[in-house]
Amino acid sequence: MLRRAFAAAGLMALCLLPAQAQDLITKKQVFELPSFTTQSGRTLKSVKVGWESYGTLNADKSNAILICHFFSATGHAAGKYAESDKAAGYWDAIIGPGKAIDTNKYFVFSSDTLVNLSPADPNVTTTGPASIDPDTGKPYGYLSEANPNGFPIVSIRDFIEVQKKLVDSLGIKKMHMVGGASMGGIQTFEWAGAYPDMVARIMPVIASAEADAGLIDWLDIWATPIRLDPKWKGGDYGNDPPLAGFAQALKIVTLHAQTNAWATGAFGAKWAKEGESPYKSFSNRYLVETALDNAGMARAKTSDANHFLYLVRANQLFGEGAAERMKAIKAPALMIYSPGDLVFPVESVRRTADALKANGVPVEQVELKGNRGHLDGVLSIKQAEQTISAFVAK
Amino acid sequence: MLRRAFAAAGLMALCLLPAQAQDLITKKQVFELPSFTTQSGRTLKSVKVGWESYGTLNADKSNAILICHFFSATGHAAGKYAESDKAAGYWDAIIGPGKAIDTNKYFVFSSDTLVNLSPADPNVTTTGPASIDPDTGKPYGYLSEANPNGFPIVSIRDFIEVQKKLVDSLGIKKMHMVGGASMGGIQTFEWAGAYPDMVARIMPVIASAEADAGLIDWLDIWATPIRLDPKWKGGDYGNDPPLAGFAQALKIVTLHAQTNAWATGAFGAKWAKEGESPYKSFSNRYLVETALDNAGMARAKTSDANHFLYLVRANQLFGEGAAERMKAIKAPALMIYSPGDLVFPVESVRRTADALKANGVPVEQVELKGNRGHLDGVLSIKQAEQTISAFVAK
Repeated sequence: MLRRAFAAAGLMALCLLPAQAQDLITKKQVFELPSFTTQSGRTLKSVKVGWESYGTLNADKSNAILICHFFSATGHAAGKYAESDKAAGYWDAIIGPGKAIDTNKYFVFSSDTLVNLSPADPNVTTTGPASIDPDTGKPYGYLSEANPNGFPIVSIRDFIEVQKKLVDSLGIKKMHMVGGASMGGIQTFEWAGAYPDMVARIMPVIASAEADAGLIDWLDIWATPIRLDPKWKGGDYGNDPPLAGFAQALKIVTLHAQTNAWATGAFGAKWAKEGESPYKSFSNRYLVETALDNAGMARAKTSDANHFLYLVRANQLFGEGAAERMKAIKAPALMIYSPGDLVFPVESVRRTADALKANGVPVEQVELKGNRGHLDGVLSIKQAEQTISAFVAK
Repeated sequence: MLRRAFAAAGLMALCLLPAQAQDLITKKQVFELPSFTTQSGRTLKSVKVGWESYGTLNADKSNAILICHFFSATGHAAGKYAESDKAAGYWDAIIGPGKAIDTNKYFVFSSDTLVNLSPADPNVTTTGPASIDPDTGKPYGYLSEANPNGFPIVSIRDFIEVQKKLVDSLGIKKMHMVGGASMGGIQTFEWAGAYPDMVARIMPVIASAEADAGLIDWLDIWATPIRLDPKWKGGDYGNDPPLAGFAQALKIVTLHAQTNAWATGAFGAKWAKEGESPYKSFSNRYLVETALDNAGMARAKTSDANHFLYLVRANQLFGEGAAERMKAIKAPALMIYSPGDLVFPVESVRRTADALKANGVPVEQVELKGNRGHLDGVLSIKQAEQTISAFVAK
């Protein structure tokens, strides 16, 4: 049971979903831009992101569905890279042949974002502070006074500008749908607001069209342990990363993205080790603490702390221009949310839905049932399959 | 408006409530135990806590109401120490002459707990790791392998054992009521479970009768920034405290005890400084971040980081024996809760209410309205005044 609780606890990207009978096989490709100028005005050479697809693009290129990924995920939304893979992509429950997003009918594709959390993952291609700056042959590093040529701060808008170049390169003029969960959901709003003529419909899941002050500050809280770790060294940690702080940062995300009810069901008030009473020593701890510490550390070892901080800032910057964004959106929206969500609380989802409706945008909403909070947008997405299927077919 | 948002943001204990027309004046007294043995088995000499009272104890000592304080508070539940005080005690809205808990009828008293957050506050008397060990003439310090004679870990049960000695010293055999918010609320359950014959009724506010795994782990997250601060030095920081980490710990408490909706209303997505765009530099931040950082730092400077860690552990230990505790409680309960509470989520309050009812204990519940989450148990308590008044009179 612990193992099961864990597979789920271990941050969204660690979700190991059961393989389907007939596996969809995909492969990671690399999309490269010789030059890319960020919203902040920096021009970068050789910007690369990974991407993958499921299904076939039709002749008139009208059947494309873009899936944008969440904070700790990659473009691996569905299928497997090989039959022997233990896990399929995180939304495999709704993407595949005959599924809610039917790859027999649609060309579904998804890319790794800039500053992806796990740049060293062999199945990830991303460009961020850990990437080599072609001008120097060394990693860009963290932007600071000491390193003014460090990797520029990027925004959700930058993520979709890179995706747009990919979409253009495929010859796609208008996407049938853009969908995504959490940070993927906010990308759907950014897409629909920035390029209303290129997006026929959006499916934002566990997301609203703004980063409110609560989200902005929670993101800062996520980042705090990294900055406090003396090994972080203002971002200049080289090959000796701030694992202790990074693990704690990931631990906060893990609990914030779920619920007390989930933790209680999974761990209760059990001690980490029998006979080692938390009355006796501060080193004696509760199982929930050590389990989430260990999950955080495991992920920290395969991820990059500076990329985490860039992702935090990108999400915070989604607070900019929220009112204008909501006004620009024309695409009908299927908003799927989880009432126990602490990251995008239900009132922020409702605020977005109300704003869109007030502008005449058709909005459908589906409430997910579960005790996983934010994470239900990934773990429980199958609940919405019929509504998704009907929405895609409209 | 910022100042107003702030007075509220600044942790519960910073709440500056408006003074009443006729101020209740009280004074802090000191209660000393020559010897006290903790639940963990350590015997301490000269254990002192502060306490104060409002109203008069009647001849048969049957009109006593004990108020237990929350995590960041003190025994200053109501009234002022001097007419010139800017703020009255945190629950002054319901405690005083003619108020819901009427000090013309009842003798209301409240003590500082062991390991109180702010041992250096001139109006606080507490015993904890920052206190002088009479055996050595030096502070006990943080319990660790390096300091095995450090202050012992204490529990909520230890808090009420000290209070019980105070109650005994006043000649009170049975209290008319024990009430409290948050950590004060869990003390009401501990009292009623440990000494059912001494407690006629309880008023637990924003609290349940257990620390579930979610709460246990959130408490750990609160503590994380202190432990990561290199200045913490395993608890041995002497006169050079880990202010950076401690400020961040207090910041997490501030947001966790409120809601995204509150933060959004108070700060929006404003930048900390005009013209300093968060697109340009990681040093440029959002107002919500710097405001809560500053509030955390202000409180950190007047509080003690090790005491914070002892409070965290005391609250975690409330996870021990929850089922037995709930079975032992006989006192009718008025449970006042806030539906947006992230610290004691509504389902944990409901679980307690259901368990008490299943044992035949009368339970009344009041839901507070507001957007302050957990903090509504302090800021919005006046909403429940009529129910409280009727419950006290039963």
